Amino acid sequence: MPELRKDPILGRWIIISTERGKRPTDFIVEQSTSKGGFCPLCPGNENTTPPEVLSYGRSNPTPNTPGWTLRVVPNKYPALIIEGDLDKEGDGIYDKMNGIGAHEVLVETPSHNEAFTYLPPDRMIQVFWAFRDRLVDLGRDPRFRYVMIFKNYGRPAGASLEHSHAQLVALPILPRMIVSELDGGLSYYRYKERCIFCDIIRQEIKQGVRVVCENDYFITITPFAPRSPFEMWILPKRHASSFISLDEGGFRALTEIFSESMRRLDKCIPNVPYNFVLHGAPLRSQPLEHFHWHFEIMPKLTMMAGFEWGSGFYINPVPPEDAARFLREVRL
Amino acid sequence: MPELRKDPILGRWIIISTERGKRPTDFIVEQSTSKGGFCPLCPGNENTTPPEVLSYGRSNPTPNTPGWTLRVVPNKYPALIIEGDLDKEGDGIYDKMNGIGAHEVLVETPSHNEAFTYLPPDRMIQVFWAFRDRLVDLGRDPRFRYVMIFKNYGRPAGASLEHSHAQLVALPILPRMIVSELDGGLSYYRYKERCIFCDIIRQEIKQGVRVVCENDYFITITPFAPRSPFEMWILPKRHASSFISLDEGGFRALTEIFSESMRRLDKCIPNVPYNFVLHGAPLRSQPLEHFHWHFEIMPKLTMMAGFEWGSGFYINPVPPEDAARFLREVRL
Repeated sequence: MPELRKDPILGRWIIISTERGKRPTDFIVEQSTSKGGFCPLCPGNENTTPPEVLSYGRSNPTPNTPGWTLRVVPNKYPALIIEGDLDKEGDGIYDKMNGIGAHEVLVETPSHNEAFTYLPPDRMIQVFWAFRDRLVDLGRDPRFRYVMIFKNYGRPAGASLEHSHAQLVALPILPRMIVSELDGGLSYYRYKERCIFCDIIRQEIKQGVRVVCENDYFITITPFAPRSPFEMWILPKRHASSFISLDEGGFRALTEIFSESMRRLDKCIPNVPYNFVLHGAPLRSQPLEHFHWHFEIMPKLTMMAGFEWGSGFYINPVPPEDAARFLREVRL
Repeated sequence: MPELRKDPILGRWIIISTERGKRPTDFIVEQSTSKGGFCPLCPGNENTTPPEVLSYGRSNPTPNTPGWTLRVVPNKYPALIIEGDLDKEGDGIYDKMNGIGAHEVLVETPSHNEAFTYLPPDRMIQVFWAFRDRLVDLGRDPRFRYVMIFKNYGRPAGASLEHSHAQLVALPILPRMIVSELDGGLSYYRYKERCIFCDIIRQEIKQGVRVVCENDYFITITPFAPRSPFEMWILPKRHASSFISLDEGGFRALTEIFSESMRRLDKCIPNVPYNFVLHGAPLRSQPLEHFHWHFEIMPKLTMMAGFEWGSGFYINPVPPEDAARFLREVRL
């Protein structure tokens, strides 16, 4: 049974997930896993994953068979498990709870070698619809407070399977990063009575130097204080705290700007490993005036990731104004 | 001129350091730097580094010549620069200041292939004395509020030079991680009137399951909520907020436990890349009842570093009780 544990000094939660590896020697092996070979996410291998919880595109009625264009399955090696009641417990100075949650894999395409960045728009939009469908469904479970949606691309960014996929983790607690954003947004709102993200968007549009691209609904910027070279944020221009409030035109516009942003990044640094994370309001939250949903895209340029990880202090050799200019000027 | 910039939502500072790399293509090269070849940290090449600010062991009086056993030099490619006045500035919603600071390289040994972990005690202790000497010296500069002392070992942990070295970064601001620890420690102290780290040490000694090793002055534990498999903290048993308060017996005891802890780790996961970071009170701080200096040692097991980096949420496949048992039981 996995366990959620809280650092008593920082209030940071971590998951102890013993399903995933155990002895010191496991790490030596894991660092050099080979490419190629059998892929559990390819069509024809549906029976090697847990039964699907969602699929799009299949014309025949039988689940877990080929013919799908997108498929969501529980992770075979989940960080958290879905069965059981939440059970919170203290141990002296420490707090923990059992690791109830969901961990799902969203297979973005049936083609093993197709990258997310180059999915055609009518296929990429399915990925965002699936995010929404899973958010709505998992949000019905009162044990969960947040669904973290993210993608790891490339081994340096933590991807253990080549076949293009995103992941969803439903959590009984709020992740520290979201708590910090909610807190920061709230203290700004109390002072200014405006959303800090809306103010950022206004200033970015006015100054222009950190804008990568935009359309009617969205803007992509390189943030003023980026942790990583070529970090990008995609924000809706109209205030909204939750991703699931997006309308159909919004989904099309999101697909357009996400696709363009990723292709610009890939042209600048071909095949760069990256993570993206959806930042949204907690599940079942009322609309919040002080929080603004968005995507954060972080290229993983390993040479930069030294002590920052341990200290919370980042050194970035590329000013975001330079990165935005490279991203804007690259030929698509 | 480097620049310090603050994320307006999270209050997180980052360094934009344009001395270190610039164009997108630089990253492709940097990811595959070759081993071997010329080493600027080896004896005989003293003139290829900036002039030393400290050295130990040289019998002749001429600086920047061979014969040293330990040497501290300014970083040739500094993240921050030492000359100039602090200049804080706003830009609409954003805050920045010029990148005043110091960035030094501490060469731990004249031998190119000698690892920190296996330095003999009389040589490893010099590393800790040098930390102290530089902390005292840099602490005299009123522009600096904190000196971050850390080590990257192995390329996956961010080391760009093979030759064993640590780094010091003097900062005009407090790093976020230290602010969070000070805040967390203070709110616990207000409630309990005890140091949270002292309470942790008491509970760890009582329970025993996360203790790696200890001596009269220090204890090494795997923390209750570790970010990384085999993460270790080395804490002084007697309350102290600043590293520089350590006495001579303390330096010997620190060397003994640090050496033992690192050798245990290396036996468990041979040649594992790691970072360690010294966490101490701000420069020129009064002794603090609510903060407790310590070292954090984080093995870098790359497969674990996926979305955690982007979300602040860590998944750890090894319970610290298991890690501590492996570390305790390994044969030295």
